[in-house]
Amino acid sequence: MKADIISIGDELLKGHRVNTNAPFIAIELGRIGIPVNRIITCSDDPKAIRDTVTDSLGDAELVLVTGGLGPTRDDRTRTVVQELLGRGLVSDPGSYERIVDIFRKRGREVTETMRDQALVIDGSVTIPNTKGTAPGMIIDCGEAFGNRHLVLMPGVPAEMEAMMKLTVIPFFTPMSGAFIRHTPIMTMGIGETQLAGMIVDVEDGMPEHTTLSYLPHAAGVSLMVSTSGTDRQAVEDENRRIVDAIVSRAGAFVYATADETLEEVVVRTLIERGLRVAVAESCTGGLVSSRLTDVPGSSECFLRGLVTYSNEAKEDLLGVDAETIRLHGAVSESVASEMARGCLRKSGVDIAVATTGIAGPGGGSPEKPVGTVCVAVASKFGEGALQVEASTFTMHGDRRLNKARFSEAALRALLARLRSFSV
Amino acid sequence: MKADIISIGDELLKGHRVNTNAPFIAIELGRIGIPVNRIITCSDDPKAIRDTVTDSLGDAELVLVTGGLGPTRDDRTRTVVQELLGRGLVSDPGSYERIVDIFRKRGREVTETMRDQALVIDGSVTIPNTKGTAPGMIIDCGEAFGNRHLVLMPGVPAEMEAMMKLTVIPFFTPMSGAFIRHTPIMTMGIGETQLAGMIVDVEDGMPEHTTLSYLPHAAGVSLMVSTSGTDRQAVEDENRRIVDAIVSRAGAFVYATADETLEEVVVRTLIERGLRVAVAESCTGGLVSSRLTDVPGSSECFLRGLVTYSNEAKEDLLGVDAETIRLHGAVSESVASEMARGCLRKSGVDIAVATTGIAGPGGGSPEKPVGTVCVAVASKFGEGALQVEASTFTMHGDRRLNKARFSEAALRALLARLRSFSV
Repeated sequence: MKADIISIGDELLKGHRVNTNAPFIAIELGRIGIPVNRIITCSDDPKAIRDTVTDSLGDAELVLVTGGLGPTRDDRTRTVVQELLGRGLVSDPGSYERIVDIFRKRGREVTETMRDQALVIDGSVTIPNTKGTAPGMIIDCGEAFGNRHLVLMPGVPAEMEAMMKLTVIPFFTPMSGAFIRHTPIMTMGIGETQLAGMIVDVEDGMPEHTTLSYLPHAAGVSLMVSTSGTDRQAVEDENRRIVDAIVSRAGAFVYATADETLEEVVVRTLIERGLRVAVAESCTGGLVSSRLTDVPGSSECFLRGLVTYSNEAKEDLLGVDAETIRLHGAVSESVASEMARGCLRKSGVDIAVATTGIAGPGGGSPEKPVGTVCVAVASKFGEGALQVEASTFTMHGDRRLNKARFSEAALRALLARLRSFSV
Repeated sequence: MKADIISIGDELLKGHRVNTNAPFIAIELGRIGIPVNRIITCSDDPKAIRDTVTDSLGDAELVLVTGGLGPTRDDRTRTVVQELLGRGLVSDPGSYERIVDIFRKRGREVTETMRDQALVIDGSVTIPNTKGTAPGMIIDCGEAFGNRHLVLMPGVPAEMEAMMKLTVIPFFTPMSGAFIRHTPIMTMGIGETQLAGMIVDVEDGMPEHTTLSYLPHAAGVSLMVSTSGTDRQAVEDENRRIVDAIVSRAGAFVYATADETLEEVVVRTLIERGLRVAVAESCTGGLVSSRLTDVPGSSECFLRGLVTYSNEAKEDLLGVDAETIRLHGAVSESVASEMARGCLRKSGVDIAVATTGIAGPGGGSPEKPVGTVCVAVASKFGEGALQVEASTFTMHGDRRLNKARFSEAALRALLARLRSFSV
């Protein structure tokens, strides 16, 4: 069984809205072993909807449609499908009651529009809408369409998501014979080509039901190992075997084999070890602190961040020596080291990271081009000695991308220091 | 002339990645009057690519394909298109030189893979890749395909975006007969329903070739006014007239009628007025500073940010009175005001903003639920008196969404204060 996803909406075709519904549906279907064959975005126009649905019903056993089920006049999905299948409409009493109830609570009168919204296509299974008004429908399209299934849902993400989880996934689970396991392998500090070179033999010997995807992102590349099959245990075992084989080759660059962000791993490691961190940032402008504090519970380990953009702030807040800045420049490993050391001392933490660099577009020079960043980590664990280590990296992006990559380098440096320290 | 967009990648079908390339391309095409007919996401599988490209070439005059042009083996677009059109490959010397240059700078040897990446389909116009290695291609598919055009680009967003702006849009501009003008109207501090009520008469009298879209986002709603036609001047005039009519009604909530972010407007305003800013953050964890420093040139006005997550840091770095925290709690307008005042004084700036709140998921209470934020702005312009003003807002999101909304509230408060101050 495979699925097509159809996303209806002119706002998607104009690019005014990003399609987040399709990936949500794809992930949910993946969990019950239904692969997605195509995702098609088409216009609100009835002919476009009809052509696209017809085409997909010839292509996939399950076709899920979002959009065009609301009360406004550009919502035409139900009518089009009704005509395509040659079926009438019937009122769904449960939906009608819920709609009337919602509007009464808002102090609104019951109107003909509400009655219309509670109509479903004859012979369909109603998908209750727990987050809005219009119900969804699961339709067996009948013999003319090889008994393929059509699922109609609203385009509003919260409504669609609740429908998928509460009704659609439970409905189709028994029909799916397959089981899929996806394992992400999150890497840092390595590019796509180099990574591919390290695991070429694993890729060459990949079993038929396992696939490997490269997912490049702003700061590097991650892998996704996907295994499908009908025997849950066999799928789990094979997936684990491939993941282990990749980690055994590229382990130095792997920071997680779960869907964890780098900041989540850093915060988790800090909390597990009872360590506290502070951040001193120049070029990253608060992004390192912001990423760490994106993680729930980070207040257990993150005490403070200092965004010292001006030289004066570096001297004033971190005790960086004006002479060091004069001699080496604000973007230098010496200044980064003094920032980290000052941040550690003044904040009373166990580990501190500092960034200073040139995010661009201005400010570069031949020796220190745009994209240069110096990262330093200072640490003093327990009775140990103070350690300060600095490195320089060069990135090749625009300002925002450089900031993202700089912050990634800082988090990587933090994690590397944490991992080098045995409890 | 209309376009189909094909996004290739198993990771998109599995839902592991959201398709942000298609909306980017759609917006760029919209600017030169080429509407998008369909957006199709298909698998890396050669047959799927071939079928989808063939289908789209029967459907649209212009087909833009992203994905499958990199160095790894799941990148098969070029081969499939080559076979479909029955053409050979030729080396593109410019691309080869650039690739070799990139790898030499990184201290890597020249390999066969690099030579392969510089190959383009015979008879195509090369799209230089200014952000990566593999070049893109614009292909006139020949008489067999009605001389329709196929554009191949990598799936890496930064690479594709540069290609669209530098080569693809200039190439197709002369072929498009139509002209479209989109003007965004960026609002703050108002919801969709309320905004719609204010401009109902403008919507009712909207001319035929102009449409108005509501684009709700994390922190509010923006509008997009789109006008199309063949006469550039008439399109511009009509679009301007509608935008002016909306601004005349909802102007108090409009912060920009260009594609400007709130942080861009804040930084521009600060620089125009020669003012300097500092930021004191608790719950936003560095995000306000990071957003301001996302703007090129922000170092002209942004001096420092202090992420005072712990109470001790608030006292230590900002001089917040421990007694104020004890009496009112860390999340209070009193503490926010002391943070802003302390930040202004200690940083020697003209204006400072402070945030303290509860991003969640933990830390809420009946009086101060998760989502509560207190924002304070302290300012002292020229010879004027010190002014401190604080407000409290309640947001309803998860941790990251709350942080985003909190930071939006802080930037809004900054901008409101700047606008209330006449030079």
